[in-house]
Amino acid sequence: MKKLYATNLYVALTHYPVLNKNGDVIASAITNLDLHDIARVSKTYGVRSFYVITPLEDQKVLIESIVSHWVNGAGSRYNPKRREALELIKIKTSIAEVKEHIKKKEGNFPKTVVTSAKNNPDNISFDTFRDMLQGDHVYLMIFGTAWGLAEECMTAADYFLDPIWGNSNYNHLSVRSASAIILDRLLGKEK
Amino acid sequence: MKKLYATNLYVALTHYPVLNKNGDVIASAITNLDLHDIARVSKTYGVRSFYVITPLEDQKVLIESIVSHWVNGAGSRYNPKRREALELIKIKTSIAEVKEHIKKKEGNFPKTVVTSAKNNPDNISFDTFRDMLQGDHVYLMIFGTAWGLAEECMTAADYFLDPIWGNSNYNHLSVRSASAIILDRLLGKEK
Repeated sequence: MKKLYATNLYVALTHYPVLNKNGDVIASAITNLDLHDIARVSKTYGVRSFYVITPLEDQKVLIESIVSHWVNGAGSRYNPKRREALELIKIKTSIAEVKEHIKKKEGNFPKTVVTSAKNNPDNISFDTFRDMLQGDHVYLMIFGTAWGLAEECMTAADYFLDPIWGNSNYNHLSVRSASAIILDRLLGKEK
Repeated sequence: MKKLYATNLYVALTHYPVLNKNGDVIASAITNLDLHDIARVSKTYGVRSFYVITPLEDQKVLIESIVSHWVNGAGSRYNPKRREALELIKIKTSIAEVKEHIKKKEGNFPKTVVTSAKNNPDNISFDTFRDMLQGDHVYLMIFGTAWGLAEECMTAADYFLDPIWGNSNYNHLSVRSASAIILDRLLGKEK
């Protein structure tokens, strides 16, 4: 078993390149509650850092102002538990920049894992990824916003993770809900 | 095994009586993304209805306008999958009114289950509740907003569910993330 609080997992939330409803590649706008919810889930499950990716300078400034309110500003005194979570956030321009950043810390590039809405034979199961996380390698799990990651992100990834199926034929979860369920399946104690 | 898409579970999100940061009983304001995220999770896991509880008339009007935009208005044409989820929402004044509503449909009052942040010997485990949901009884799982359900809701409940522990000593999840993880543990296929 790995040491408590130390997982081999990094998480990224990508705002470019993602798809809009028509399948065009766009840069999406950030959603405040994505930052809070995914940071809190990341803290709960021992994720090493939570990268928020956007190439847009005005969006970076907005993320920075939200994070600094909770990490250094009035929010950090109002709710120290929120500070602990939002401290995990790092703002980057691209997935490539995130991979370089992790390489500098860890010595190696992370293996990348994306979520897929399709059941295909190349997907890895939650159990398989759970076992992989017990090894020595470091992984970067990438979530998309809007209508999901652009094709170029999908094909560049090392692994596709199985989609989440609940108890119905409906699988249209928010990225906030999906990331919570996935991290619990991979790292939760009740397994 | 129960029939696919038919669970014995109802879910409620309560805005009164809940606690503020100082432990005072308050009525909290609704959060738009709570409605969307919990409705989508409820649809994914076959929850029968998702009750949103508030005694405040202006808040009921606001919820009604959000739901009707997605169920009958422009939103229903823009995103029919969102309509399918938000159709599960029913607006009620109190937990008592929800229980009466379920009794009218089902013939019996539901057993109520609340989540607790405490590890205490009276809690039921996720596995126990998962097994209970395979029986004939109908259950109402109640989530609180703000700093959690007031004491009177806790003591009136039939069961307390174990808290969520991840992979750390941090358990400060949003109600959106917590409800997603709990429904997956209770009703997800990967078990």
